[in-house]
Amino acid sequence: MNNVLAAQNSVIVKRMYMFVRGDNMAVVGIVAGGTGSRMGADRPKQMLDLCGKPVLIRTAEAFAGHKQIEHIIIGIHADWYDEVKELAEKYFGSAVTVTKGGSDRNETVQRIIETAKGFPDVNDDTIILTHDAVRPFVTEKMIDDSIEAMEKYAICTAAVSATDTIVVSKDGSTVSDFPIRSTMFQVQTPQTFRIGRFSEVYNGLSDKEREQITDVCKLFYRKGYEVGLVEGDRKNIKLTYPSDMAFAEKLFIS
Amino acid sequence: MNNVLAAQNSVIVKRMYMFVRGDNMAVVGIVAGGTGSRMGADRPKQMLDLCGKPVLIRTAEAFAGHKQIEHIIIGIHADWYDEVKELAEKYFGSAVTVTKGGSDRNETVQRIIETAKGFPDVNDDTIILTHDAVRPFVTEKMIDDSIEAMEKYAICTAAVSATDTIVVSKDGSTVSDFPIRSTMFQVQTPQTFRIGRFSEVYNGLSDKEREQITDVCKLFYRKGYEVGLVEGDRKNIKLTYPSDMAFAEKLFIS
Repeated sequence: MNNVLAAQNSVIVKRMYMFVRGDNMAVVGIVAGGTGSRMGADRPKQMLDLCGKPVLIRTAEAFAGHKQIEHIIIGIHADWYDEVKELAEKYFGSAVTVTKGGSDRNETVQRIIETAKGFPDVNDDTIILTHDAVRPFVTEKMIDDSIEAMEKYAICTAAVSATDTIVVSKDGSTVSDFPIRSTMFQVQTPQTFRIGRFSEVYNGLSDKEREQITDVCKLFYRKGYEVGLVEGDRKNIKLTYPSDMAFAEKLFIS
Repeated sequence: MNNVLAAQNSVIVKRMYMFVRGDNMAVVGIVAGGTGSRMGADRPKQMLDLCGKPVLIRTAEAFAGHKQIEHIIIGIHADWYDEVKELAEKYFGSAVTVTKGGSDRNETVQRIIETAKGFPDVNDDTIILTHDAVRPFVTEKMIDDSIEAMEKYAICTAAVSATDTIVVSKDGSTVSDFPIRSTMFQVQTPQTFRIGRFSEVYNGLSDKEREQITDVCKLFYRKGYEVGLVEGDRKNIKLTYPSDMAFAEKLFIS
């Protein structure tokens, strides 16, 4: 009981401190539900080695040093839960929490949020940055900008202007439209919103909608919310194909 | 005079042979007009070293071995003409022709076509594959498919389905549309068409249209032609940023 009181007091002190600083405390949800079939490896891509540590540990490290990040929660496929729990303890002690992911991305986000709600300093207003486990090159600036954007938008996503010309093809054989190049953006993560808002949007969906809309930003957009863009980075790549790992190693060393 | 006759005879024999084989002869135009400012180097990116040879020499090599390619023409920025001419002679003897590029991409293509027309075996029906000098990873299959597509389309381009989610933002701050992901493609090169068709389309444009439309496929599309898609490759990247060079080296070695 004393421990609980102590914890509550510590939370109150921290909140007061945050209030004085004018900061927003935030939680990170690292989404690692995939099984990595496209990587052609026997391990999911977030489990592959990147210069001595698994990719998802590198990704967690990128958030761990940020002053506004209070909790990091990894949502991992059930098959990898034990191994990731062990890794998280090895590298972060109790600073990183591991939870089992759901059957799709949004369900994994939902489970991460449920886990976050278990912390005494987390409530519906708490900001959560959801991030792909396979994007270890997220920058401090992206985290700053994402948190700041919460003063303006219900949801925001990191994005970069499209490098290549993008065309639309309805049949996959011929071009059906040439959209204006300067209006096309490639979505990255983090995707950031307040915890309560996600539950409100997600619980308001039909099963069919949940199945069809795999992108959180699109969920919010569908429900009438404006989706803000924050500046991503070309290096903030999603490690998807085997060749990406070689690229990531080069990036990591430089 | 005897040489000219011999050359003409050789062309006639080659054409007959091609007719019997049912092959299409093709020309490659390597577009290297850029000055590489985005690469942050003092040399255009096509001139940077890729495992011992300049990028554009690697690109030319990728086409040089193909059975249907008869001529390779490099269109290069005037500042680099002398150096590239020397390089082409060093690596390819007389098999690769160098010409000065124009003030934009389409004008460079136009100049390459004028150069191509100087060859006795080239006419309006000749297929030309136009290709970015900074995409050295074009494959034989892409070349095959591009030439084959000329039986069906007036123009085709290599493309890959978009890896990232693509969103539309008119103001660069918020998302204005979520296009259907499966319909979005990233355009690569080669972009392939018949020589006479390009001149017809290009000469039919106003100065303003020429200035505004920098993409050859879009030019054709604007003039009512169907634009075919051939399967590109994720590795067929455009070397644009400094980090791309490290990636290219890894790809080249593997």
